Amino acid sequence: MNFVVFVNGLILLFMAGLMLIDAVIFPATAEVFGTSALIIGMTGAALTITTRGEFTGLARLQTFLLTSSVWLTAALAGALPLYLWSMSPVDALFEAMSGVTTTGSTVMTGLDDTPRGVLMWRAMMQMLGGIGFIVVGIALLPILKVGGMQLFRTESSDKNDKELGNAARFAFATLSVYAGLMVLCAIIYRIGGMSVFNAAAHAMTTVSTAGFSTSDSSFGQFDSAFLQWTAVFFMILGALPFAWYIRVLYRGRLRSEQVLALLWTLGALIACVTLWLSLTNGTPVLEALRLVAFNVTSIVTTTGYATTDYTLWGPFAVAVFFFISAVGGCTGSTSGGAKVMRWIILLRAARAEIRKIPLPNAVSTIRYEGRKVEDDVMSGVISYFTFFALTFGGLAFTLGLLGLDFQTAVSGALTAVANVGPGIGPVIGPAGSFAPLGDAAKLVIVAGMFLGRLEMLTVLVLFSPVFWREA
Amino acid sequence: MNFVVFVNGLILLFMAGLMLIDAVIFPATAEVFGTSALIIGMTGAALTITTRGEFTGLARLQTFLLTSSVWLTAALAGALPLYLWSMSPVDALFEAMSGVTTTGSTVMTGLDDTPRGVLMWRAMMQMLGGIGFIVVGIALLPILKVGGMQLFRTESSDKNDKELGNAARFAFATLSVYAGLMVLCAIIYRIGGMSVFNAAAHAMTTVSTAGFSTSDSSFGQFDSAFLQWTAVFFMILGALPFAWYIRVLYRGRLRSEQVLALLWTLGALIACVTLWLSLTNGTPVLEALRLVAFNVTSIVTTTGYATTDYTLWGPFAVAVFFFISAVGGCTGSTSGGAKVMRWIILLRAARAEIRKIPLPNAVSTIRYEGRKVEDDVMSGVISYFTFFALTFGGLAFTLGLLGLDFQTAVSGALTAVANVGPGIGPVIGPAGSFAPLGDAAKLVIVAGMFLGRLEMLTVLVLFSPVFWREA
Repeated sequence: MNFVVFVNGLILLFMAGLMLIDAVIFPATAEVFGTSALIIGMTGAALTITTRGEFTGLARLQTFLLTSSVWLTAALAGALPLYLWSMSPVDALFEAMSGVTTTGSTVMTGLDDTPRGVLMWRAMMQMLGGIGFIVVGIALLPILKVGGMQLFRTESSDKNDKELGNAARFAFATLSVYAGLMVLCAIIYRIGGMSVFNAAAHAMTTVSTAGFSTSDSSFGQFDSAFLQWTAVFFMILGALPFAWYIRVLYRGRLRSEQVLALLWTLGALIACVTLWLSLTNGTPVLEALRLVAFNVTSIVTTTGYATTDYTLWGPFAVAVFFFISAVGGCTGSTSGGAKVMRWIILLRAARAEIRKIPLPNAVSTIRYEGRKVEDDVMSGVISYFTFFALTFGGLAFTLGLLGLDFQTAVSGALTAVANVGPGIGPVIGPAGSFAPLGDAAKLVIVAGMFLGRLEMLTVLVLFSPVFWREA
Repeated sequence: MNFVVFVNGLILLFMAGLMLIDAVIFPATAEVFGTSALIIGMTGAALTITTRGEFTGLARLQTFLLTSSVWLTAALAGALPLYLWSMSPVDALFEAMSGVTTTGSTVMTGLDDTPRGVLMWRAMMQMLGGIGFIVVGIALLPILKVGGMQLFRTESSDKNDKELGNAARFAFATLSVYAGLMVLCAIIYRIGGMSVFNAAAHAMTTVSTAGFSTSDSSFGQFDSAFLQWTAVFFMILGALPFAWYIRVLYRGRLRSEQVLALLWTLGALIACVTLWLSLTNGTPVLEALRLVAFNVTSIVTTTGYATTDYTLWGPFAVAVFFFISAVGGCTGSTSGGAKVMRWIILLRAARAEIRKIPLPNAVSTIRYEGRKVEDDVMSGVISYFTFFALTFGGLAFTLGLLGLDFQTAVSGALTAVANVGPGIGPVIGPAGSFAPLGDAAKLVIVAGMFLGRLEMLTVLVLFSPVFWREA
């Protein structure tokens, strides 16, 4: 248990450091972030110092507690400066949870007039959330054979892979890729005409497929084809498996069923919606292509930027954008949602189920990346979808009970659990915000983002009495 | 294959008989039903006579073809008189499919002025659909170990059960219960003040948990507490496992986890919604109780009657009524939806999944009715929910693409797949009808009702090339 507290302390120290940087760069909000840095830093120091010592490896069960507590701690700490600045406690928690889970839903309006220090803090939380998910996903969770978490293992492990053998080295390499992509993205944004501030803030929220922007019109504030296509490119890069980058860099092996499937899905979706948009709404093809490519990629990768209110395109677009919220990027990336690999395995299992009827005694093997999908991976996928559906349904139901209209309740639940960002409809759609919702509804969505990011089981197990008896 | 055609011929002959009865009783539409009876009867006779002969048992694969084709044949034959009367081909098919699948969605308005012969035909189709589902479910499908179909086996089989050993005798006993309940229901309806016509028509659509009524105000036309509570009682009876009745009658064994769970679910739902309705809308408790009990029971049992437009009660009610559409009655009953037993097993499996984390090596047995849930049943339940979710999602998506608004698309898809009846919202809600929808959307919903009634896999397997290679 000491180790859990220790890591939470480290996170707090790291966040205090980020707050300090924010305070130094942006004098207008220096007091807010300075004070926060002091409080969070001292808390972090206290926690790390009291629990420092020899750690004898991490017990299996503590890993769950560690992962869940880290996100909760980060959200609470991230909310502090927002609260000190001017937000209500619930709003601050919502914004911070949306940040560290890389969701991108916001309760803030008037972003264009918001102090830059606050805007940068929102971006920093998302950058942190992206890092967090990769580190936890790659260095920590592969040791667990649970829920969907072992998917990371399937994606990253290759038993004969000497280069990837060492978890610490591997995590470091991944972080380098993440940082490298972010720096590259920022540079290209700057070249494309963004201010240094906007380039930095948007690079952080693009590569982490997170989606906070610095204007109420989201990425639509940049009326530049170059910038928008750059964003499309980096959103996709952020949604690819980070282990795949390492493999490509070290071994030159490009082939990945998941990457290919994501690209095909994106391509097909963009082609269809572009065709439909230019045919029915008369938008010029090139403009339609850019609009569709940006917004579809944003939702599929669970980033959540928007360059326009695509829900005004009509019910066709509403249906498309609602359902693609559930796709998600690749496993082992920063994106949320069910993720492409799980969909591949689920659909193959469904096909196998149909084939089993005429050939009940035939052994049907489900393959992925040319290898048999092991039983524990299969059961992890099934269990993920079960909990995804139950959590989604439960949230939508609760939001409905709290008085939200049908569309807002259902799409709000999905966008939270899949960590996408915007919902559907006039309230929480791409042109709206979560601000008009009541506090209870906001807290339900906070819970949804938290559960979604940690893939449900990591959190739910903490509510099991057996867990605590064995811990 | 001969046998498949033969049974379809028998169904046609039986339907021709019903049409003839309709023609005799209701002179106003005698020509419509007489002509239909002739066409359908001759087709049926031709089919049975040409394929009559010795049948050497039913091959496993033919069972699927048989089941799917029977419902399609019944829907097509049932649509004929509606088409000859005055409806468009798509509308007639919609109404007939909604009838034989015991869904209860309607494209007809002005029911109060519709000829009684037509109204009775709608009720007859639902009675037939109810019989069909029980016969197929109990006599035919237990031999298959596929999809959710083996649930019937679990519910009805008891290896030492001499009384239930003989499938034919068992099917006969079940039909007797079905007919007995219907007659009893009609008598009580008559005592409660319904006309003979209404008592007969509503008994047929109550016990089959199907939901066609004889007025645009559905069951709301009977402003009688006695009649409404009678309907509640018989809707519940129609949603109980018919094998359970036999067991109670022959062996006096009342205990059934599924029956208990359904009653508890209904009780809890009714209590909560009644409390909410009387507190927020100020409805007197006794009136609220009757309103809620009727409409909640109607949706949970997938009947689809309504006594009021409950969606006007507010978003809370919309959320409740949408989500309870997915519950369904018991397996081996006439009701549709996912059904209580599957939910019990799914939720127990989810709980076991959480428990498996702290105790990865413990053997977790999921029990139902005191017995271990066998692997094939378990995988049937999982596979049912997978196909349920995929079909529901696919339908909602398609309906959205066809231009329906979000609420209509999503609730229309659910109400079709779960064979409930009304959806949510101003168009297809309890006060509306499916009439305003376009032909394409209607056909999509027809496909949804068909897939839902046959629990997806029974139909989907027919699209597998392997099926036809092996058949």
